[in-house]
Amino acid sequence: LYYSNPQLRNLKMIVAYEGTNYSGFQRQQNGLLTIQGVLEEGISKFSGETVRVIGAGRTDAGVHAQGQVVNFGLKNRLPLDQIQRAVNHFLPRDILVKSITEVDPDFHARRSARSKTYSYRIYNSKIRPLFERNFVYHYQYQLDPKPMETALTLLLVKHDFKSFQAAGSPVKTTIRTIHHCKIISIPPEIKIFINADGFLYHMVRNIVGTLLLVGSDRITLDKFTRIFEGATRTAAGPTAPAQGLCLEEVIY
Amino acid sequence: LYYSNPQLRNLKMIVAYEGTNYSGFQRQQNGLLTIQGVLEEGISKFSGETVRVIGAGRTDAGVHAQGQVVNFGLKNRLPLDQIQRAVNHFLPRDILVKSITEVDPDFHARRSARSKTYSYRIYNSKIRPLFERNFVYHYQYQLDPKPMETALTLLLVKHDFKSFQAAGSPVKTTIRTIHHCKIISIPPEIKIFINADGFLYHMVRNIVGTLLLVGSDRITLDKFTRIFEGATRTAAGPTAPAQGLCLEEVIY
Repeated sequence: LYYSNPQLRNLKMIVAYEGTNYSGFQRQQNGLLTIQGVLEEGISKFSGETVRVIGAGRTDAGVHAQGQVVNFGLKNRLPLDQIQRAVNHFLPRDILVKSITEVDPDFHARRSARSKTYSYRIYNSKIRPLFERNFVYHYQYQLDPKPMETALTLLLVKHDFKSFQAAGSPVKTTIRTIHHCKIISIPPEIKIFINADGFLYHMVRNIVGTLLLVGSDRITLDKFTRIFEGATRTAAGPTAPAQGLCLEEVIY
Repeated sequence: LYYSNPQLRNLKMIVAYEGTNYSGFQRQQNGLLTIQGVLEEGISKFSGETVRVIGAGRTDAGVHAQGQVVNFGLKNRLPLDQIQRAVNHFLPRDILVKSITEVDPDFHARRSARSKTYSYRIYNSKIRPLFERNFVYHYQYQLDPKPMETALTLLLVKHDFKSFQAAGSPVKTTIRTIHHCKIISIPPEIKIFINADGFLYHMVRNIVGTLLLVGSDRITLDKFTRIFEGATRTAAGPTAPAQGLCLEEVIY
């Protein structure tokens, strides 16, 4: 790893961003605006060094973060609070470094992560949202959060999430463990939290899409269980849109 | 009044908006984007009628509203929920009609108002805000909300707000009555609420600007009282920026 270079400090940053105007976290070749690209540029502008940041989660276009974690190697020896201030100065208003610490050379934002927590906000109202509009999925048909909560709890038991991964995703295993999950319902909002040791591609958004079928009484809890156990993507609900999703925290 | 025309229904709407991209509430001759202009256009698009809306408060550029109230005359006889849906359909995402009711012909959104409540959000942190960035004033120096609260309470006693009106404002009287006020401090935020029978131009923002001097220990409570009693604008603090301000509610 390049940051095992003894000249480099391995720096860990907690980063928050509004994903609305970005083509996702991961840097792309096509010149599209990405969180990773803008972060690397901000760090370079302040330090004069070329850096490559490693992100804990590759959030999609439109997905937000309260607690994305990145790490990168840096020669610069300035105190960490000065680095944080300088990097924030060079970042746009929709990306923010919340904290910065120096970590062991073997710390890797993605591989060292033990679990991650995502949240998904549903705005359940006939009237569209205003101030929350970029951070919620506006769902007009009335939802009952009770069966949604029961369905969510069922995911704590079984561990194969094949029915909730995006079709055709190339992964070795579809076994994941959800450690914690909860639903907080403060009308008109329903907010879902899922903490797991790992997430398949579109897993949270596919779970939410299927929970919406349960909450609007279009499938039963039995059917939900069968979809889950059947482990086939086609039976599950549609993928909920990106803008309701937020990477809340990464735990090491 | 044109809406005393018996052919017209006098409709009252509660409207919320994010003021960031607007040159204030009031329609202007210069073609600038205003809340009033966009509202009138939205209503016209749906109804085919030319309307002129009356707003309870003429919020400045960048000021937001959770509960602005407007009224206007309309020939259209559709049910109110359909009118609301149609108007919302024609409004941009940063303006929202929250409710609509039919009122007496003599109801006038501004003149009939008994009191209004404004809030002002201060984001008191060395690190800049992210998700709140368009809705708060970022104030970096540490504030103590206690003396700010005491100072605010002093405003309940005296009634001449001349020191807190914008210089050179042409009004008959500078006497206003603050009925209620409070400060809610949930770090890093301090949120100030002021309910009064009326507000002078820039009154809330000038009060907040002076409260910031108290909270950062740059003037004493005694000095604050003297500024207030002296009733001269020059002694007070600077006008706090527009983006922290929000028209919360209009009471009739």
